[in-house]
Amino acid sequence: MSNIGTIKYEGAKSTNPLSFKFYNPTQVVGGKTMREQLKFAMSYWHTLCSGLPDIFGEGTIDKSFGKTAPMDIFKAKADFGFEFMKNLGVDYYCFHDNDIAPHGKNLTETLDNIQHMAEYLKSKQKESGIKLLWGTANNFSEKMFMSGAATSPNADVFAIAAAKVKTAIDCTILLGGTGYVFWGGREGYDSLLNTNLKLELDNLAKFLTMARDYARANGFNGDFYIEPKPKEPTKHQYDFDVATCIGFLRQYGLDKDFKLNIEGNHATLAGHTFEHELALARINGMFGSIDANEGDYLLGWDTDCFPKDVLTSTYVCLDIIRAGGFTNGGLNFDAKCRRQSNTIEDLYIAYILGMDTYALGLLAADKIIKDGRIDNNLKTRYASYTTGIGKQIVDNKIDLATLAKYARDLKSIDVQSGKQEYLESVINNIIYGGI
Amino acid sequence: MSNIGTIKYEGAKSTNPLSFKFYNPTQVVGGKTMREQLKFAMSYWHTLCSGLPDIFGEGTIDKSFGKTAPMDIFKAKADFGFEFMKNLGVDYYCFHDNDIAPHGKNLTETLDNIQHMAEYLKSKQKESGIKLLWGTANNFSEKMFMSGAATSPNADVFAIAAAKVKTAIDCTILLGGTGYVFWGGREGYDSLLNTNLKLELDNLAKFLTMARDYARANGFNGDFYIEPKPKEPTKHQYDFDVATCIGFLRQYGLDKDFKLNIEGNHATLAGHTFEHELALARINGMFGSIDANEGDYLLGWDTDCFPKDVLTSTYVCLDIIRAGGFTNGGLNFDAKCRRQSNTIEDLYIAYILGMDTYALGLLAADKIIKDGRIDNNLKTRYASYTTGIGKQIVDNKIDLATLAKYARDLKSIDVQSGKQEYLESVINNIIYGGI
Amino acid sequence: MSNIGTIKYEGAKSTNPLSFKFYNPTQVVGGKTMREQLKFAMSYWHTLCSGLPDIFGEGTIDKSFGKTAPMDIFKAKADFGFEFMKNLGVDYYCFHDNDIAPHGKNLTETLDNIQHMAEYLKSKQKESGIKLLWGTANNFSEKMFMSGAATSPNADVFAIAAAKVKTAIDCTILLGGTGYVFWGGREGYDSLLNTNLKLELDNLAKFLTMARDYARANGFNGDFYIEPKPKEPTKHQYDFDVATCIGFLRQYGLDKDFKLNIEGNHATLAGHTFEHELALARINGMFGSIDANEGDYLLGWDTDCFPKDVLTSTYVCLDIIRAGGFTNGGLNFDAKCRRQSNTIEDLYIAYILGMDTYALGLLAADKIIKDGRIDNNLKTRYASYTTGIGKQIVDNKIDLATLAKYARDLKSIDVQSGKQEYLESVINNIIYGGI
Amino acid sequence: MSNIGTIKYEGAKSTNPLSFKFYNPTQVVGGKTMREQLKFAMSYWHTLCSGLPDIFGEGTIDKSFGKTAPMDIFKAKADFGFEFMKNLGVDYYCFHDNDIAPHGKNLTETLDNIQHMAEYLKSKQKESGIKLLWGTANNFSEKMFMSGAATSPNADVFAIAAAKVKTAIDCTILLGGTGYVFWGGREGYDSLLNTNLKLELDNLAKFLTMARDYARANGFNGDFYIEPKPKEPTKHQYDFDVATCIGFLRQYGLDKDFKLNIEGNHATLAGHTFEHELALARINGMFGSIDANEGDYLLGWDTDCFPKDVLTSTYVCLDIIRAGGFTNGGLNFDAKCRRQSNTIEDLYIAYILGMDTYALGLLAADKIIKDGRIDNNLKTRYASYTTGIGKQIVDNKIDLATLAKYARDLKSIDVQSGKQEYLESVINNIIYGGI
Repeated sequence: MSNIGTIKYEGAKSTNPLSFKFYNPTQVVGGKTMREQLKFAMSYWHTLCSGLPDIFGEGTIDKSFGKTAPMDIFKAKADFGFEFMKNLGVDYYCFHDNDIAPHGKNLTETLDNIQHMAEYLKSKQKESGIKLLWGTANNFSEKMFMSGAATSPNADVFAIAAAKVKTAIDCTILLGGTGYVFWGGREGYDSLLNTNLKLELDNLAKFLTMARDYARANGFNGDFYIEPKPKEPTKHQYDFDVATCIGFLRQYGLDKDFKLNIEGNHATLAGHTFEHELALARINGMFGSIDANEGDYLLGWDTDCFPKDVLTSTYVCLDIIRAGGFTNGGLNFDAKCRRQSNTIEDLYIAYILGMDTYALGLLAADKIIKDGRIDNNLKTRYASYTTGIGKQIVDNKIDLATLAKYARDLKSIDVQSGKQEYLESVINNIIYGGI
Repeated sequence: MSNIGTIKYEGAKSTNPLSFKFYNPTQVVGGKTMREQLKFAMSYWHTLCSGLPDIFGEGTIDKSFGKTAPMDIFKAKADFGFEFMKNLGVDYYCFHDNDIAPHGKNLTETLDNIQHMAEYLKSKQKESGIKLLWGTANNFSEKMFMSGAATSPNADVFAIAAAKVKTAIDCTILLGGTGYVFWGGREGYDSLLNTNLKLELDNLAKFLTMARDYARANGFNGDFYIEPKPKEPTKHQYDFDVATCIGFLRQYGLDKDFKLNIEGNHATLAGHTFEHELALARINGMFGSIDANEGDYLLGWDTDCFPKDVLTSTYVCLDIIRAGGFTNGGLNFDAKCRRQSNTIEDLYIAYILGMDTYALGLLAADKIIKDGRIDNNLKTRYASYTTGIGKQIVDNKIDLATLAKYARDLKSIDVQSGKQEYLESVINNIIYGGI
Repeated sequence: MSNIGTIKYEGAKSTNPLSFKFYNPTQVVGGKTMREQLKFAMSYWHTLCSGLPDIFGEGTIDKSFGKTAPMDIFKAKADFGFEFMKNLGVDYYCFHDNDIAPHGKNLTETLDNIQHMAEYLKSKQKESGIKLLWGTANNFSEKMFMSGAATSPNADVFAIAAAKVKTAIDCTILLGGTGYVFWGGREGYDSLLNTNLKLELDNLAKFLTMARDYARANGFNGDFYIEPKPKEPTKHQYDFDVATCIGFLRQYGLDKDFKLNIEGNHATLAGHTFEHELALARINGMFGSIDANEGDYLLGWDTDCFPKDVLTSTYVCLDIIRAGGFTNGGLNFDAKCRRQSNTIEDLYIAYILGMDTYALGLLAADKIIKDGRIDNNLKTRYASYTTGIGKQIVDNKIDLATLAKYARDLKSIDVQSGKQEYLESVINNIIYGGI
Repeated sequence: MSNIGTIKYEGAKSTNPLSFKFYNPTQVVGGKTMREQLKFAMSYWHTLCSGLPDIFGEGTIDKSFGKTAPMDIFKAKADFGFEFMKNLGVDYYCFHDNDIAPHGKNLTETLDNIQHMAEYLKSKQKESGIKLLWGTANNFSEKMFMSGAATSPNADVFAIAAAKVKTAIDCTILLGGTGYVFWGGREGYDSLLNTNLKLELDNLAKFLTMARDYARANGFNGDFYIEPKPKEPTKHQYDFDVATCIGFLRQYGLDKDFKLNIEGNHATLAGHTFEHELALARINGMFGSIDANEGDYLLGWDTDCFPKDVLTSTYVCLDIIRAGGFTNGGLNFDAKCRRQSNTIEDLYIAYILGMDTYALGLLAADKIIKDGRIDNNLKTRYASYTTGIGKQIVDNKIDLATLAKYARDLKSIDVQSGKQEYLESVINNIIYGGI
């Protein structure tokens, strides 16, 4: 155990690295406390498992927490994790099956280990009041998944993936998780030359359907999520972006049970802003949960940085508020320390950075909505669709030929400014005018 | 008129720049002549209109063809264009309304000019036997469309766009076009701050629906196409990529009448290969027509280069063949000469380059299919889904729990090589082994 | 003339769009007023010339200022421009030869027009106290420059470019400019197939050398700048980035007279952060002047947005301060309104956005330096190079074999955290803790 | 040992996966055999060490070659490697210190292991006639190098890196290598906030200087190479691209001893074509050796694919020929099998793919040079610099004012086509017209 105690809110003037400067859990913003609004979650894998290797180098931090026996290591991870969450005031966590327990000598033993450790986590939850946000199965790391899991060309691999998902769902139910995530890490292809695109997409849908049916039959009432990512590790990932995922879910009749778990870094890798992906999900009723992290726009891979950009966190919080807040979802820090940040203290500071960044975003978003200039401009801009010819268009009461006639009779056309710089300056004025 | 006559097939050893080296129009490949298979089309805008400006410089080639009066210029464009197509043996063309006629002093006059010139084109078609592949309306160049056309915040702009599409559809019907394209150049946004995403998407669908209804009521039996492009000129274009477009068309019930017009350069700007976009459209029954061009992977804008990469044209032709060949669609060279290629001779040579590149692609694709190694490998790879547990998965005859049980009983799992380098070497052997 | 008067500082709580919220020109920051520190400049081309076309559409704003005769239009541009600068309190401007005067019917007439208008600008400067930051020649827009200017394969084009630069230098001297810029818009290539790389690079150096010699002989004591940009309009631009430019200037002995004019959007197109380019120039003594704008990381072309990102402006201001402030250079807004922002009011607001963004950056940078945590951490981190073996390395007093021996004798190696998240949180605390 | 024997040239019609289709080692091209021209080398790390993990998954192939004791494993790697090279007819190899021997329990033991295994490799070389192309030290994988080696903020790490390089140089000399490479994997930064840019660049130069001095003093007569790469693993790597590296080497007086080892995938990650980087090195006399691989333009990380694109290999071979062929350098396959290609047979096939691709490139390049159209066009294009005003420019015999006067007197200016599409069609005609 580290000797770092509870992290307290000390305000913006504090220079204590181990304090919150902006995140004040009990401060009420938009009718709820920050803590209730933001529903922060700890990512088990990055926080408790990853030694921070990269493709060119070994890990820089040891996360065996002083233990050597496999099961002891995983218990120590859990112990550290719950202390860490308690110290930070993080109320939720998210895990993959493989994060919480050691591999056994065969599938059955591995799954048994996972179920055993889930019981241990249940006791830790009870003790601490901390909850499970969502569970998932890691069906991408082992060699057998090299060509996918639900989209593997090998039906036995599909079956093993199913077994792992079954156990992960069982554990999620046991732990009262309100969500279950599918990140299709290798559900995609490296080359079209060896890929049966149609069969793989159909199989992916069949897999999700079976998992949904199993979970619903066993009492899971939460949300299922798929998580868009365009590429990495595969060249092309089927869950490319929000639009692709929504299309897929609707095509296969999964859109009633599934929503999206949207990650910042995945959005930008797909060529979208984080806020675009959130807005698109929202207007389609598919906004679910958030993996809050940041990429580096100049790097072409998933960097999973802790959030530090307040403009982005502001836009994200605007979308959370506009979606009516989180229901089953929350804000999971799917983020890791930079490889050179090789201490437990860095880990605390990284979470503080992320939580402060989202506190600032929430405060700014709340102010933007109360200020009203952005929303009022939007209403004015589209006013022509609330009367006359515009309303007829919206109400499906006019046809092309009638519109054409109307257009020929128009005397002039007034093209109004989009006012982008004005709106950007309003945002800056609010963010920097003293939150 | 230029003094360049008919371009003939002279074979690979010819050094005459104004001859085909690989495109032999009467050569039978896969049961049809190259000419029938490839259905080449001339893009009116690049070929007859663009003076090759870029954002930092003026045009480098004059395309008034020696005329000064507006209508004379456009007649001269048509005359040159039909001669150009005849010389090259290109059987189809594609146009925007604004490409074929001069602007009038108001909308009515502009539309009248377009209809007038459509009659002229009809006479040129009759004379030459050349056909219209598809028509479209340019609803993005004029100032009034700066915030979109069907997605403009101004309902009057929506109406003017409708009027232009009505005329363009009328002309397409008059000219016997088998397709009608919507490229949503500015149907997107520059900033989410001033955008009502839901209203704009709904309006886009309403616009397409009205246009479809009008065209069908007036005897158009061809295909409608939307054309995916992720960005440029807008920051985000609603028709981002094939997956997004298919999702959109299905959501709004337009997928029975609409297919996709897929462009190479747009695919790569969206982070996809050209062949990915084609394959995805194909397996969804949405493969329509092709805008054959190339981007530069190291440049982030639409370069619209003439095709020169034979590996890509091979993959494209494989997809055309697998889709059963073109029906209403064809292969339009939506490509322009480089700005330094400032002569009519360059224009001929550029088309020759493109046509030879696709002839090579067609020859290679035909050989690949006849060779069988790629297809056979695919069958073998997925064989586990044709029997046993795999077949049960495909036939929806097994559930998650049963699969989990099956998995626990598996003694071993055999993970077969994906053989990517082997398959790539097969492709190279076929392409370079003497087509 | 617009009826917008002087823009005043009204503080962060003002909602008047036509006021500064953060830029308080007389406020002293770091020993000088904001106005002295930031040396804002107006870009003549974007501000007074561009009608905001893009490659897919015509202009959206008319900048003839109510005039029709060519010379009248350019005088009206100047009149508007000086009023605009006066209203905003912008003390400097930058221009291309072609920005300030109409084309004549031949080169001589064009150059005479430029010299004539330069006299006019001189009178405007005298009247207003506004100064010229730097001049330049537009040797990329006309057809003749399609293959470059100093790097054209045509020696006559080289000569014409020389003539234009001579006049632009003459005007810069006349107007008391403290800088002269070379942006090599088409000094690069589209294809290596038709490019003599060595000759072109040598010619570029010869051109700069001749220009320098001419200007120095005629009394120019200011700085010459080359401006890095990696691509666009050409596929490859020779002045790719800061490192490339410094190497080039040193190779050809130009580094005593030339510094760099560094642009934000060009930096990111080259795969660098703006601050990287500034820092690299600074440590090489080549920091000159700044083109302050922003790109969009998700778009692959030069968007020339007005600055709005305070984190970037903070890093830029940190570098300006560390370089000892501007000497001959300044902060030019090489930025244009978004195409939908089609009014003069938008233009004012865009400059206000940019100036407020840099005011915030300056305030934050000053605080960061006074705070000391970033700088102190840096000193501590590299302390091992100030004593012992580290100092021997720095002082060139040790060789490889001795170091190897030393290393073999080391008992342990202590690898300290890079503390990146901590440092990022310090930056955020300072920026958002109330500037 | 695998049971795959000698790989033979069987010609383009062979469908034997384990045969060369185009690489005929004894075929004379351009005055030398293919084998002499191409100087293929095996990369020790990818070929003999990497189990093909990626950041999301474990290895898929075991490369312990049936052994368990550390030193036995490394001897088995060497044995397999020499058999592999012999079977393929690959005459050279390249290695990192860590590739060839197991880690010891401290630095001294590790270095001793390396020296011990170097002796073993020497015996293998003697036996087989296979030679060392170049050696290098892996100063990036271990935790201690997390912040760089020569640019580490910790002087002790600098010393350890020096010790490793000393041993790697000793081994390179022992094995008769004609090159020694520095790839600065972590010589760069992740954040400017914690980086002393100037000190790090100075230290990097000091390190290279010391290494050079040591090697020269100990009889090394070969070339030193630095290897450009823009990023990954670090955000910014100091050896960004060829232009940056040349500037750096010249600044620190290292350009007489150092040349460049240029990698295809690194070029494209930097925003350059492979051929651009080669051409730039060549005209600066810095062309050294080649790491032949391919990236995926749509992926933002180093994929290290085996070469398959013949257009690229053609351009590369053109540059090799224009540089006068390899002297101390060669063509190293710094490439790895795709992760799904998990067999030794795949490894052979991947090398065959690469070797055939370069054989095709060499054949095409030789034809292009003999054909003469590309070179002749180039001469014609720049002819204006061989007489008159152009020659005066090249000979430094004219000044700006005289050029300006000349320009004013020009009656007209003739802007010739760049003929890019024509030149591209010539290349295609040669490549696809039957090599």
